[in-house]
Amino acid sequence: MDPTSFETHPSRYKHWRLTTNGDIATLRMAVDGDHPFRPGYELKLNSYDLSVDIELADAIQRIRFEHPEVKCLVITADLDRVFCSGANIYMLGQSTHSFKVNFCKFTNETRLYLEDASAHSGLASLAACKGTTAGGGYELALACDETMLVDDGSSAVSFPETPLLAVLPGTGGLTRLVDKRKVRRDRADVFCTLAEGIKGKRAKDWGLVDHLVSRTKWDEVVAQRAKELAAKQQVARGPAITLSPLEPKVTPERLAYRFVEFTADVTARTGNLVVRGPEAADTFDATSEPWSLRAFRELDDALLRLRFDYPDIGMVTVRTSGNQDLVRECDEALAKTSSGFAREVRLLQRRVLKRYDNTARSFYAVADKADSCFAGVLLELALGADRFYMLIDGDEKIGVSTSVANSGFMTTSTGLSRLDTRFYGEPARAQKVLARGAEGLIPSEEAEQLGIATIAADEIDFDDELRIAVEERASLSPDALTGMEASLRFVGPETLETKIFGRLSAWQNWIFTRANSTGQHGALTLYGQPERPQFQWKRT
Amino acid sequence: MDPTSFETHPSRYKHWRLTTNGDIATLRMAVDGDHPFRPGYELKLNSYDLSVDIELADAIQRIRFEHPEVKCLVITADLDRVFCSGANIYMLGQSTHSFKVNFCKFTNETRLYLEDASAHSGLASLAACKGTTAGGGYELALACDETMLVDDGSSAVSFPETPLLAVLPGTGGLTRLVDKRKVRRDRADVFCTLAEGIKGKRAKDWGLVDHLVSRTKWDEVVAQRAKELAAKQQVARGPAITLSPLEPKVTPERLAYRFVEFTADVTARTGNLVVRGPEAADTFDATSEPWSLRAFRELDDALLRLRFDYPDIGMVTVRTSGNQDLVRECDEALAKTSSGFAREVRLLQRRVLKRYDNTARSFYAVADKADSCFAGVLLELALGADRFYMLIDGDEKIGVSTSVANSGFMTTSTGLSRLDTRFYGEPARAQKVLARGAEGLIPSEEAEQLGIATIAADEIDFDDELRIAVEERASLSPDALTGMEASLRFVGPETLETKIFGRLSAWQNWIFTRANSTGQHGALTLYGQPERPQFQWKRT
Repeated sequence: MDPTSFETHPSRYKHWRLTTNGDIATLRMAVDGDHPFRPGYELKLNSYDLSVDIELADAIQRIRFEHPEVKCLVITADLDRVFCSGANIYMLGQSTHSFKVNFCKFTNETRLYLEDASAHSGLASLAACKGTTAGGGYELALACDETMLVDDGSSAVSFPETPLLAVLPGTGGLTRLVDKRKVRRDRADVFCTLAEGIKGKRAKDWGLVDHLVSRTKWDEVVAQRAKELAAKQQVARGPAITLSPLEPKVTPERLAYRFVEFTADVTARTGNLVVRGPEAADTFDATSEPWSLRAFRELDDALLRLRFDYPDIGMVTVRTSGNQDLVRECDEALAKTSSGFAREVRLLQRRVLKRYDNTARSFYAVADKADSCFAGVLLELALGADRFYMLIDGDEKIGVSTSVANSGFMTTSTGLSRLDTRFYGEPARAQKVLARGAEGLIPSEEAEQLGIATIAADEIDFDDELRIAVEERASLSPDALTGMEASLRFVGPETLETKIFGRLSAWQNWIFTRANSTGQHGALTLYGQPERPQFQWKRT
Repeated sequence: MDPTSFETHPSRYKHWRLTTNGDIATLRMAVDGDHPFRPGYELKLNSYDLSVDIELADAIQRIRFEHPEVKCLVITADLDRVFCSGANIYMLGQSTHSFKVNFCKFTNETRLYLEDASAHSGLASLAACKGTTAGGGYELALACDETMLVDDGSSAVSFPETPLLAVLPGTGGLTRLVDKRKVRRDRADVFCTLAEGIKGKRAKDWGLVDHLVSRTKWDEVVAQRAKELAAKQQVARGPAITLSPLEPKVTPERLAYRFVEFTADVTARTGNLVVRGPEAADTFDATSEPWSLRAFRELDDALLRLRFDYPDIGMVTVRTSGNQDLVRECDEALAKTSSGFAREVRLLQRRVLKRYDNTARSFYAVADKADSCFAGVLLELALGADRFYMLIDGDEKIGVSTSVANSGFMTTSTGLSRLDTRFYGEPARAQKVLARGAEGLIPSEEAEQLGIATIAADEIDFDDELRIAVEERASLSPDALTGMEASLRFVGPETLETKIFGRLSAWQNWIFTRANSTGQHGALTLYGQPERPQFQWKRT
């Protein structure tokens, strides 16, 4: 199968039209049915698949970096009677379990990025739904700050997943309904079992939408509300930078970028991910793409390709190389620069690191060479890994160092930093690491004593220890590991985000494996066919 | 199949010995291998199944009510080299998915009850593990306040589930490891993949156990530590009351108790649960069993039988009947009585209501008769239901009323009351209901306006509305409904408890459906056989 490309550009979009006008950007969904992600289904009625969502993710990212003048994003559709009818059901029905789960995860991340842009970048969003807004379409609307529904006597918002397909509105829908929009739980229950959805006054009364607007006043009210949302934004943005293509070299065994490299050992079912540090200290005047941005965009792309194109590679070692002082200088410069561009770079780093946390692979960080570079923002890769193996070298050249990037900004989806996650319940230990890190390199043995390294071993033992650990990990059931990692990585408080990835997605994954949805007589399998689904009635 | 009985008594225990000595109770696990819950496997090495856990739950409950002098419970084993080897694997391998999930849920509830007793009833617990403490055995230890492991060079604590069985330590194990005991997540990762577990000093250093004691000093140190834990307890207990047998009349279509009745319509796959109010106001001097205790013990038993013996009944209407003033009097008297016994009754009501929240059935509360009695603690059944249907009668005799039981004590597992859950983010609306309720009965129409009723309809529409809603619900996929209800019922904050039921259990349920654990070549299926499991390697 061809490798999946997550890179695109507005000039090449097949399913969306992006336009900007002053401080308002408009993203119009106009799904081209003949260009699905894989052949085998048609994208009717603005239903979406991975190719549609890749463009959406690209558009949100580009607006953040390339259009700092934009303060409100209007998401709407080019069809007159349909906003979006959700994820394409035939696509779901034909997909493997692994693809379905990773597709849902990616779409969830994209929707969270809309909320992240609103919360941290002064980029509000308005879903202007001038027609049917169903399933994933309504979930997209729920991720916007406000939702406007046309009041035409027929257009409704709906979650038909449970009644029609025997699955969940799993792209955050259930969680956002009750936790974000605070729809009363018994009403949410009614709504989620009503295939035809809810329209008009009741949709507004129940809190399902924010605004109800007639067809005649539609354009005017949308424009007015977008203007108002834009006017509320206080966060300074810019300067603009153009996101240049990543264009990795891709072979079945290797993804090679400028700063990131992933190699797969297909026989051993293991991989190795290397992130290289900067060649010089970054400047953040947006005249050129700094390492802090480029390396993390590359890492993001590599993680997505790992998820979709290397499903058998369950165990990945993570290494870094470079000059630790340069990484720390980049981090400090980035934190000090007050421009919107610098903020965007940090927010992107944070999102990429969250993507890493949410990637269902075993990650063992490894520091085993003198140029190992787990410093500052790259140290987060070690703290986020399931384990961290460090070689104790005689010269004490191998070590870790900290920067401002480790002291709170780079939160996981729980809202805790990775250091606070590591020392959950003992914040003083995180402070101790930061204080020691301020003095310079922390060699492997000391890093183990401080609780940073999982295992530190000398040259006599290190290679065997790591080799056995990797082989053992690669021999275990990938499903049990996914569940185990999802439980151990997210210590502490839960948030809307962790509820979506931990609770809602876990239930959806379970439901996707059940005969009632995906079996021969399941509702998802039989959708669109005359045969009625046959359910197994046992409740679990 | 014979109906499942959750009633037992220490005199009939087959798997545990309960003794008390002053303020210390000792519960010794001595599983009788020849008395499994169902024939087909042998309970070797203190492995457990539902029959073992029913006795454990009974013992904890009886200590709370019948032995108020006890301030510390020591959980230990009669075997010399084995504390407990966890849930019986052959039992799991032979069980249906539905049974496995419900078995895990029940054992999770039992372990949470140990923590509840410690937190609220002044009953500490000490796991005295003088030998192998594996899987569910270690999960039981984790639910105790403190864990003592024998330091004999061989006894270890372990979670072999992932490496040996391709499933999770799903009885709270993963969550308690990192969230309760705050074991560092990378160490937890190592521990959870080490089939042989961790013993001795490392177990203590990593925070896996609290005390490490030699064989020679074992009895003395256990007794000493139990005494110290007992001495710390400040909560007044008692007076004692004997928990009398419930002895329901059971037929395939009906469970009949004194105050509770469940009837099943097997053809329609629906059920009706009725809870009757008290015949007189309760007194809480423990000379007789008050309605507040009896009715909720009956409800608890009915819920458990519903889960295990009526798997096809997915849709249950919940009705109440009786005198609302009497319920409110009982609630007020219970809240005012300062004895330990009264506290135990309230805590039991709270636990039973949580069991209701966590029961994977659609519950529609229905108030459609003049003697309907959704008052005070019984109103919680309507607030906890997925929907609440109320008939608007001409006389306004049908309505709801509130009591002290609705104002905060009866929390769900999120820590919010059911009124605060209903009006999540709008606490003033909950207060408004309580203020209005203090003035007397709130008739159906007003209850709908206040946000208590989901649907209120008059006599012309009510029967059809309810009938159609019930039929529709009963026609939907039971799996999708389980996932949907699990998402909508638990709005707001997450706790150790909701993490266990929402995140950990959902992942475990998913894993239980995967071929890598329960398929023909799965690790759980093949356990104990010479054939090695064959895994499908795709990560999801």
